[in-house]
Amino acid sequence: MLTIDKVYDAQNELRRVLRATPLIQAPRFSIDSNVYIKPENLQVTGSFKVRGAYYKIAKLSDEDKKRGVIACSAGNHAQGVALGSQVNKIKAKIFVPSTAPISKVEATKSYGAEVVLVDGIYDDAYAAAREEAEKSGAVFVHPFDDEEIIAGQGTIGLEIYQELSDAEAVVVPIGGGGLASGVAMAIKTLNPRCKVYGVQAAGAASMSESYHAKKILNCKTVRTFADGIAVKRPGDLTFELCSKYLDDVVTVSDDEIATAILMLLEGQKMIAEGAGATGLAAIRFGKLPIKGKKVVALVSGGNIDVTILSRVINRGLVTSGRRSELNLELLDRPGELTRVSSIISGQGANVVHVNHTRGNVNNDINACFLHVTMETRDFAHFEQICAVLRESGYTVNL
Amino acid sequence: MLTIDKVYDAQNELRRVLRATPLIQAPRFSIDSNVYIKPENLQVTGSFKVRGAYYKIAKLSDEDKKRGVIACSAGNHAQGVALGSQVNKIKAKIFVPSTAPISKVEATKSYGAEVVLVDGIYDDAYAAAREEAEKSGAVFVHPFDDEEIIAGQGTIGLEIYQELSDAEAVVVPIGGGGLASGVAMAIKTLNPRCKVYGVQAAGAASMSESYHAKKILNCKTVRTFADGIAVKRPGDLTFELCSKYLDDVVTVSDDEIATAILMLLEGQKMIAEGAGATGLAAIRFGKLPIKGKKVVALVSGGNIDVTILSRVINRGLVTSGRRSELNLELLDRPGELTRVSSIISGQGANVVHVNHTRGNVNNDINACFLHVTMETRDFAHFEQICAVLRESGYTVNL
Repeated sequence: MLTIDKVYDAQNELRRVLRATPLIQAPRFSIDSNVYIKPENLQVTGSFKVRGAYYKIAKLSDEDKKRGVIACSAGNHAQGVALGSQVNKIKAKIFVPSTAPISKVEATKSYGAEVVLVDGIYDDAYAAAREEAEKSGAVFVHPFDDEEIIAGQGTIGLEIYQELSDAEAVVVPIGGGGLASGVAMAIKTLNPRCKVYGVQAAGAASMSESYHAKKILNCKTVRTFADGIAVKRPGDLTFELCSKYLDDVVTVSDDEIATAILMLLEGQKMIAEGAGATGLAAIRFGKLPIKGKKVVALVSGGNIDVTILSRVINRGLVTSGRRSELNLELLDRPGELTRVSSIISGQGANVVHVNHTRGNVNNDINACFLHVTMETRDFAHFEQICAVLRESGYTVNL
Repeated sequence: MLTIDKVYDAQNELRRVLRATPLIQAPRFSIDSNVYIKPENLQVTGSFKVRGAYYKIAKLSDEDKKRGVIACSAGNHAQGVALGSQVNKIKAKIFVPSTAPISKVEATKSYGAEVVLVDGIYDDAYAAAREEAEKSGAVFVHPFDDEEIIAGQGTIGLEIYQELSDAEAVVVPIGGGGLASGVAMAIKTLNPRCKVYGVQAAGAASMSESYHAKKILNCKTVRTFADGIAVKRPGDLTFELCSKYLDDVVTVSDDEIATAILMLLEGQKMIAEGAGATGLAAIRFGKLPIKGKKVVALVSGGNIDVTILSRVINRGLVTSGRRSELNLELLDRPGELTRVSSIISGQGANVVHVNHTRGNVNNDINACFLHVTMETRDFAHFEQICAVLRESGYTVNL
């Protein structure tokens, strides 16, 4: 059975590998509460996953260690198992779906693990990993539904309690539920009055649905850019623990997650991956009853592919009025492009892209269209530019 | 005179406001040395500047405090002075050039300072601030050429020595030289064997040129996206101290800085601004004799405008082969676009932008051009895609 003693044991074992991740105050998220961040994105391997994986491996019998371990993951668990194996000097074979970002595959290899690319999605890689474990006798390290894994993740709960014993709420991202199970068990054991909330992406809400239905439910499909928590079914053990210890499980949309990532980046100078920012998104968008409280948001990881990050930033710029687009109808005569660009720059906006085309079949044969993308200060600034263009005789379409 | 006692005094004063920024190991930058980061980007206000500004303000006489302070800055110094004034409950008036990013102006206001926008560039705002200080009797807080300011920044040197007393080299960004003067003085006083290097942007290298010429030289123009260190002339005091204490001053290009920002983002999940990443850029691009050494790179700040960050990421993706562009010549007949896109996706690349145009006046009347932007794994992957397209009969231009 999972007890707090096991979490303390994990804390002792983990001293060898962990980087300290002290709490950081987050003024920008502290609108009507006092928010601290537990920055596990700054942890070695870029996520908390190394805690459970390392502890699981450290606790294997000598015989099991000789046979090595096998895991299946496209991301953080892979890096955790790889580092855990490297430090314990055992062999690790990680099955990875071929669609995984190259950056995560390279990171896993850099910790000395053997990577087996499997054609297809996660489920295909999982099946191949299980088959290989069966055949070779190596230990399969489950990403969440495992007592040692959960105890390892639970060390975060200990650290939060040891550093901020009067925290009134802790907010934890949920995929399969290993992190939430461990943290909630530890916190509730040490301070039953502290609330612990789980947060899932709305597009992958299997634990949230299961928690409220009081029985395990499967997602048929998962759809979120928060790949670290895109899980179809909670674990048996993690469902039991989350049901017992969590005060609620809520969901956030991908747009809410993206906004939280951008706020964290601008306000705290830190990168979170989609999964990592769900807790902050829930706080920012008022999903939790934490008004006036001292709250810890666990930022679980920072392994976001930079191409995704670049899209998140661009989307955030658009939704906050700092990147704006407009369509202008021009008469096709010389000088119009010059005139329009001088109006825009005169208003202090910065043109980043222009597309100038002749009209389509439905329009006047002399018509001509200009699609302009600009850097603006905010929505008011953009509206002011549109107003000046209209005053100058242009038809502006948004 | 500036002595180490003053730096210790500053350390005591600063306990009230500083956030702890413990050293973090940086494996990705540790190619042939052992690199630690001093993450002042995680400091309150997002940069080290609060140290000097706060100490300067705390040491003002009661009479001076009543008159308030005036400063000129488009960035980090503004936020430092604003926070320092807020905590010390005195009035601050910050003169800001009207071209400053809106995000920095808003941050300065959020600390309760009065912001005066001055039409023009930094020099115009500086003149206006000096004039106002003269008129009102308020204390002008210089961004770097001031003993208290330098002593405040020097506390970073103390912290590095207290945490890693066997560091063999410390690498510090230089704009006006306040940070480098303070850190170098503290480090060299405590451990004269430790090397201290300054790093400047090649486009704003006034201290580097002055250091090597052994006299103060002015830059006529400055040109770098590292706005935090875009300074035309070193201070008199900072030139003297840098000349005395630094082992060398080197420069890095804007592209080298951009690469370092992207590496820090991917490897350490942290955001640096241009100035903040110069030290890491110098390490990454082999500008310093640190092979086999234990090195601390000071990341001075993280206040980068997200539109700039977005450009830095995009440029980094291109220079590392993860975003690729090609031009194809097609025959203008149905089905060509389908055929090309199926070849590209079959190779595992992800098309992000396509521009399909009829030929220009110099080409065959049937010619047609396709400009394709793709997400690729690396340069080898891109070349493989080009090879397959050529094998399929297409003319590929890069």
